[in-house]
Amino acid sequence: MGLTIALDAMGGDGAPDIVVRGADLARTRHPDVAFRFYGDGARVQALLDHYPKLHAISHVHHTDVVISGEDKPSIALRKGRGSSMWLAIDAVKQGMAEGVVSAGNTGALMAMAKLALRTLPGITRPAIATVLPTSVSECVMLDLGANIQCDDRNLVEFAIMGEVFARTVLGLPKPTIGLLNVGEEDLKGHEAIRQAAAILREIDLPIQFQGFVEGDAVWAGAADVVVTDGFTGNVALKTAEGIAKMYSGFMRTAFRSSLAARLGYLLARGALNKVRMKVDPRRYNGAMLLGLNGIVIKSHGGTDSFGFANAIGVAVDMVNGGFTDLITAEFEHLGRFGAPVQKVASS
Amino acid sequence: MGLTIALDAMGGDGAPDIVVRGADLARTRHPDVAFRFYGDGARVQALLDHYPKLHAISHVHHTDVVISGEDKPSIALRKGRGSSMWLAIDAVKQGMAEGVVSAGNTGALMAMAKLALRTLPGITRPAIATVLPTSVSECVMLDLGANIQCDDRNLVEFAIMGEVFARTVLGLPKPTIGLLNVGEEDLKGHEAIRQAAAILREIDLPIQFQGFVEGDAVWAGAADVVVTDGFTGNVALKTAEGIAKMYSGFMRTAFRSSLAARLGYLLARGALNKVRMKVDPRRYNGAMLLGLNGIVIKSHGGTDSFGFANAIGVAVDMVNGGFTDLITAEFEHLGRFGAPVQKVASS
Repeated sequence: MGLTIALDAMGGDGAPDIVVRGADLARTRHPDVAFRFYGDGARVQALLDHYPKLHAISHVHHTDVVISGEDKPSIALRKGRGSSMWLAIDAVKQGMAEGVVSAGNTGALMAMAKLALRTLPGITRPAIATVLPTSVSECVMLDLGANIQCDDRNLVEFAIMGEVFARTVLGLPKPTIGLLNVGEEDLKGHEAIRQAAAILREIDLPIQFQGFVEGDAVWAGAADVVVTDGFTGNVALKTAEGIAKMYSGFMRTAFRSSLAARLGYLLARGALNKVRMKVDPRRYNGAMLLGLNGIVIKSHGGTDSFGFANAIGVAVDMVNGGFTDLITAEFEHLGRFGAPVQKVASS
Repeated sequence: MGLTIALDAMGGDGAPDIVVRGADLARTRHPDVAFRFYGDGARVQALLDHYPKLHAISHVHHTDVVISGEDKPSIALRKGRGSSMWLAIDAVKQGMAEGVVSAGNTGALMAMAKLALRTLPGITRPAIATVLPTSVSECVMLDLGANIQCDDRNLVEFAIMGEVFARTVLGLPKPTIGLLNVGEEDLKGHEAIRQAAAILREIDLPIQFQGFVEGDAVWAGAADVVVTDGFTGNVALKTAEGIAKMYSGFMRTAFRSSLAARLGYLLARGALNKVRMKVDPRRYNGAMLLGLNGIVIKSHGGTDSFGFANAIGVAVDMVNGGFTDLITAEFEHLGRFGAPVQKVASS
């Protein structure tokens, strides 16, 4: 038996069904993984009865307490100690699981994970990251909403975490890093971003800092790791989702608008399905809460079992890639990057 | 003769050709408009010789000085007093034209326009706005990059300017206003945005404040006017462009990937062209520099004559809609919104 992933069986719109079905799908892809389910024991057991192979590698821990999608992080922390989300995170803390996946409330998950697992030494604030498709390949973007306002230090930490993620999980030997900005020139943007760029140019790590990248260049594949504050990252990610949805809607209407267009769709369907697969949000499901002393993955709340299985896959890849150890080593090497920050500040 | 539009004949990648050809196209749409061209007199005259009807309603003012795309605003201000851009703006100041269109450097255009025309009374900072397509209709978004950091007051001013624009140019009787944020709940976002929301809820103007809108909701048509700071707006706009380009590229590849797909494309081409037209960036060309004592329109530097004609159309619509007078009246009514700001601050 390899590793164990803890699952918040009650998080997300389709819980616990999609969680159990997603785990069964993930099992076929990662045969060395076992699962610990936290949630409504009777419902989870009833579902597991349909998946005997999954049942054989699963442990179910019952709780009645569930964090709702609307609960504020503060409320979740107060009432949520015995909740499925808390217990799943706690399994990582107790060493009973190597990673946790939840499709529940993001704010509550981050708050609980910070409290239970703590941030790694040298990291001021954890960030939410995700992998996104680009015209040429894919990229990691962070932060996507954990930190609404960020200083230079936060941005530099995000850059380092994103770089290690791209190496360990995406398997890129020398990932390039870009800071999201309104122009490529040195003078563009606000103070925090310019200062972060200055630190990244000087930092004592073998990272490939690309400089500033603009919102359109991200999707052309300008950098493997795109670093930004949580406000901008959240808006950029949701804008991308919104535009994709708008286009799909327009295309759907177009293909239904005439008999010729319907026929055309039927003929091109195979090729169009490949495009759909390439940008399928379920394929990119599984946002990483980086910077914590443990692997925590947030699945989209509205995903299906295919998407949830992908989120589990991200957790497995991060565990197998030794993400936490590598991040810890980088920040130890930097000595909490006192040195490079001072270097820039005094120049 | 109705009104006159001043044109920076030397701004943009295709100048002066696309400027002259764009003006000729605009002439057919707006028969009551005359033009003043500023730039290389010999080249503009030679082009005008091909368009006798345009020639008849055009005045050409020669200058050798051109602001380049790379010139920083400060440099442009210093060396650019006799430039085609400056002279075109100055024509508005001198009352020789009702509006100006340039496809040149945005930073230089804003700096020169602020210096020559001044901001309107009550407005702290001008903003860049544009009209964008949504799933259901279109929306105005601002600021798109003129103001990297914004306080609550700036955001409220943008909201009022965007609202007047939507009424006068888009012809919406009661446009809704949304503040771009990372969530819809009152507690989301940073201080400036929450405070701006509080002011907009209390303000003594009959505006339809919708609350916060998220990045994806913008494209679903959640608000007619989307207000944000220039950093976020710029990233959102460029993200939208980048995603659209990525999708188009994927579709193009898909339609070429097999004989069936090629045939399918041929059959569906008519319907797909309608989608392309709907989202054609040239149709949305013409960013408005709002808050100035005059109508100033920035055309995309890489557009063609069709796009440039649309930018001229935006200027004509703003002049005909009485935009500047209406904005001035709104801010006079608010008394530089001392009252509503204090109301919120003391509550």
